[in-house]
Amino acid sequence: MRVAALAGGVGGAKLAGGLARVLTHDELTVIVNTGDDFIHLGLKVCPDLDTVCYTLAGIANRKTGWGRAEESFHALESLAQLGGPDWFRLGDRDLGLHLERTRRLNAGEKLSKITNDFCQAWGVAPKVLPMSDDPVATRVYTEEGELGFQEYFVYYHCLPVVKGFRFFGCEEAKPAPGVLEAILASDAVIFCPSNPWVSIDPILAVPGIREAIRSKAVFAVSPIISGRTVKGPAAKMFAELGIEPSALAVCQHYEELLTGFIIDEEDRELAQSMQGMGVRMLVTQTIMRSDKERQTLAERIVKFAGEVKS
Amino acid sequence: MRVAALAGGVGGAKLAGGLARVLTHDELTVIVNTGDDFIHLGLKVCPDLDTVCYTLAGIANRKTGWGRAEESFHALESLAQLGGPDWFRLGDRDLGLHLERTRRLNAGEKLSKITNDFCQAWGVAPKVLPMSDDPVATRVYTEEGELGFQEYFVYYHCLPVVKGFRFFGCEEAKPAPGVLEAILASDAVIFCPSNPWVSIDPILAVPGIREAIRSKAVFAVSPIISGRTVKGPAAKMFAELGIEPSALAVCQHYEELLTGFIIDEEDRELAQSMQGMGVRMLVTQTIMRSDKERQTLAERIVKFAGEVKS
Repeated sequence: MRVAALAGGVGGAKLAGGLARVLTHDELTVIVNTGDDFIHLGLKVCPDLDTVCYTLAGIANRKTGWGRAEESFHALESLAQLGGPDWFRLGDRDLGLHLERTRRLNAGEKLSKITNDFCQAWGVAPKVLPMSDDPVATRVYTEEGELGFQEYFVYYHCLPVVKGFRFFGCEEAKPAPGVLEAILASDAVIFCPSNPWVSIDPILAVPGIREAIRSKAVFAVSPIISGRTVKGPAAKMFAELGIEPSALAVCQHYEELLTGFIIDEEDRELAQSMQGMGVRMLVTQTIMRSDKERQTLAERIVKFAGEVKS
Repeated sequence: MRVAALAGGVGGAKLAGGLARVLTHDELTVIVNTGDDFIHLGLKVCPDLDTVCYTLAGIANRKTGWGRAEESFHALESLAQLGGPDWFRLGDRDLGLHLERTRRLNAGEKLSKITNDFCQAWGVAPKVLPMSDDPVATRVYTEEGELGFQEYFVYYHCLPVVKGFRFFGCEEAKPAPGVLEAILASDAVIFCPSNPWVSIDPILAVPGIREAIRSKAVFAVSPIISGRTVKGPAAKMFAELGIEPSALAVCQHYEELLTGFIIDEEDRELAQSMQGMGVRMLVTQTIMRSDKERQTLAERIVKFAGEVKS
C-alpha cells in the first residue's frame, strides 16, 4: 500500500510516525506544509517540516509538541539578556539545524535536497518532502489586520479573530521534486489530522497538487473531535469564519476530494448522521497519546483504505 | 589618568581587565581590533571584541581564552551531525550574542552602538569601541596562498608560513565614533600585550588613528617574553618574516610611536641592552595568571606612564 500523507505540524507528525511503523520505507512519502516557514533572526525556520522530521527521527519533544527533546535554551537566554527578540522559542540543538539549513539555502541548495540529507543523517527512513522548494507564506487576515502566520500563531497566541487566509507566492510555486510523483504513484492519499485551513490548504494551493490528488483515493482524518481540536486553532478558526466547528465541517471542507473520512469514536453519532454524504466513514479512536496508539490508528486507516479501494 | 588602550584578544583583554580595576570607568576606553571579524554561518563574529567584552563582563572562559565560561555546544553538535562546518567553535550562549548582533547589523545599526548596548546589558563600565564600524578584514599571505584570518588562525592552526599581511578595506574605513576623541583626550595610549602584526597593526591602519596616536604618550607591553608568546602566533610570525622574535623586535616594530615600553623581568638583560633606543623602559612581571596579577600590571603601567609624562 503506497501512501502519500499530507501533514502539518504536531497532529500530522504523529500520524506520519504511526504510518512509518506500519508501511515499509519505500511505501510512505510525507508531504509537509511549508506555508508556516519564516525567516527569524536571519534563519530559515520550517516549523512543520522540522516537527515531522524530529518526530520520525525520534528526537521530537513530546511534551511541547515542537522542538527537540532534551533541549537547552542557552543561546536564546543570552540573546534575551542583550534585549533581543525571544518570543519564538528556538532551542540550542534546533538552532544547529536552522543554521546549517540557512547556510545551505544561502549557498543555493534546495530545501527538498537539504531535507533529504538531514533525514539521512537522522536515519529517517520514509521520504519527507516539503510541499515546494519555492517560498509560500501563509498570511492570516484578522480583525487586527494581516499577520504573518508565526506572528498570529506564536506572537499573538492565535488571539486575533480570523477573517481569512492567503498563501502568498503559491501561484508561482512549483511542487517540490517528487511530490506529484509520490501522489500519482500512491494507492491512497491521506490528509493527516492537521489544520485544514493553514496546514492542508496551503499544500493544496500549490499548483498541480490538488489536480494530482483529485484522481486518487483520498482519506482525511478529522483534527476536530467533539467540536474541539486536540491542539491548535482549527476549531477556533472554523467558528470565527462562521462555521460550527465539527468533524462534519472538516469533511465538508474537503468534500469534493474525499473518498473516505476517519472520525473519532466520540463523534460516532455525528458520523451516522453523515452517511448520506457519499464519503465512506471509519469511526475509531483518533487521539494518539503513545507510539502504540499512533501505530494502531495508522494500521486501521491503511486497512480501511485497502477495503474501500477493493 | 585617562587611558586609551588598544587591544586584540586574550592578552589585550587581560590587561584591559586589569586597567578596569585601576581606573575609573570614565578614565578608560578600550579600542579593539576588528580585523579578525568574519561572517560564519551567516553570523557576524567579532572574536577580539567579544573576548574583551566577555572578560570585562566577568563571563569569559579563562581556560580556553575564547568564548564564555560555563558554555555548552549543543547547537554546534546538532549542526555537525547534519554535516555542517564545525571547525569554528561557537558555543550556545556565544551564538545568542552573534544572532542578536547580526540581526541588528542587518537592520542597519552600527557595531559601535550595538557593542555599547551589549556592554550596558552586561554591566561593563569602561567604554569599549570597535576600531571601526566599517569592515576591515585581515588577510594573511602565506606560502599556501592568501588566507582569511580565521582560516589561518583556527582552520589551519597558524601552520602556514607567513609572508605578510594586508588589512582589506582599511583605506576606506573610518574610526568608530569616539575612537579619535578617546585617543586625543587620553593622558596615555597603551598598546596591550597583543599581536603587533594582526591585533595592533590593523587598528593603526585605520586612517586617522596612527596620526592621532602620534601626538600622544604611547606605552606598549611586549607580548613576547624570552623570544616566545604566552599565547598566539606573534613569535612565529616574527620568525617567518625574518625577524628574531623578541621584546626588542616588538619595540622596533612600534618604535616611532613609543614613549615607553613594558618588558618582562625575564628579559631584564635585553632591556638593559635596549637603553640607547630613546624609549623609557619598565621591567616588571607581565604575565597575568590571575585578576590580582592583571591589576598589579595595570597599576605599574599607569604609575610608569604618570612618571614618564611628568
